[in-house]
Amino acid sequence: MPSASVVSTEELSASEAKWITLKRINWKDQTGKDRTWECAERKTRGSSGIDAVAILSIIKSKTNAFPPSTVIIEQFRPPVNSYVVGLIDEDETPEQAAIRELEEETGYKGDTIVESSPLQVCDPGMTTANMKLVVVRVTLEDKLETPDQKLDEGEFIVKRVVELAKLHEELKGYEGKGFVVDARLSHLALGYDMAIRASKDLL
Amino acid sequence: MPSASVVSTEELSASEAKWITLKRINWKDQTGKDRTWECAERKTRGSSGIDAVAILSIIKSKTNAFPPSTVIIEQFRPPVNSYVVGLIDEDETPEQAAIRELEEETGYKGDTIVESSPLQVCDPGMTTANMKLVVVRVTLEDKLETPDQKLDEGEFIVKRVVELAKLHEELKGYEGKGFVVDARLSHLALGYDMAIRASKDLL
Repeated sequence: MPSASVVSTEELSASEAKWITLKRINWKDQTGKDRTWECAERKTRGSSGIDAVAILSIIKSKTNAFPPSTVIIEQFRPPVNSYVVGLIDEDETPEQAAIRELEEETGYKGDTIVESSPLQVCDPGMTTANMKLVVVRVTLEDKLETPDQKLDEGEFIVKRVVELAKLHEELKGYEGKGFVVDARLSHLALGYDMAIRASKDLL
Repeated sequence: MPSASVVSTEELSASEAKWITLKRINWKDQTGKDRTWECAERKTRGSSGIDAVAILSIIKSKTNAFPPSTVIIEQFRPPVNSYVVGLIDEDETPEQAAIRELEEETGYKGDTIVESSPLQVCDPGMTTANMKLVVVRVTLEDKLETPDQKLDEGEFIVKRVVELAKLHEELKGYEGKGFVVDARLSHLALGYDMAIRASKDLL
């Protein structure tokens, strides 16, 4: 299949835009001084108040037949004209969506919500965008099965199962392949790797 | 000192905006179908091609007098009308800026660049924003000193030193205090915590 690609890009006026808009914020700083700030905002935030949910899966074997692993996905993202490696993310409310989307995009059935984060902000110097991170456990009997995805038409998502302890190293390998990694997945992988290094006094 | 706060917010046309803009992207998907996507873009990206750098410090004792720690900061962010807890970030090129900004905003002098990430994308479904993450080691003789910041006028940044192994727990505590945590710091802390849980077979 041919790759996706950007054909052209044009300025868009705020009145023409359907999905996002620009805002000017008038605010007072800590000394009481009047200041302004510009930001971008999604127009689609619903009553949940949450723009998106990211799903971190932990794939575990009941018998420790394989090391704890996770699923990452590769998906073309027009804003950065690149295939992005990240966690599954959906513009929807949290925990139930997490279980459903995990199954659709990876085939894995989550059995436990390990944790669901407080609301986080994605890039708070530039946008109002927020998200929750839901951690879902997938318990397998022993073998690391790789079930089929159940993608919607027009969804092109490649999934890969990666051992958690090797995730940081694995993501580094994407740099040479013309992919770019989502900052959130990248920070998660770095955190995991740092804890391993700390346990060996290698920080 | 009184808190910072948002006074009002207004729609901003793309032609009035100085710092960010909206774009319509015309792209072809993997089946060759023409599609469009809307996104926001910073107007300030320089020749480095990098919008921002985040700095993760590792504060270590030569004599293991205290556990490996890091510095997080609390700073008001108008787009989300909230104090945000995050890593230091700067719109500048990487490693040298990382060492300088770490000292200005926290007082700590970095001695080693532990690693400098490939380019990452912050929220690639919504914006073109990208960043690098630089990990800086600060080696202290033994005591966990807390040097003074060297803030510019008009900068209001609170710094806190947190043990890496307790970062995830610490960030959870911010929810009740009306703060919101940056997704990148939050993912890093979760990754660290998950590796600790994995080492105890508690994932």
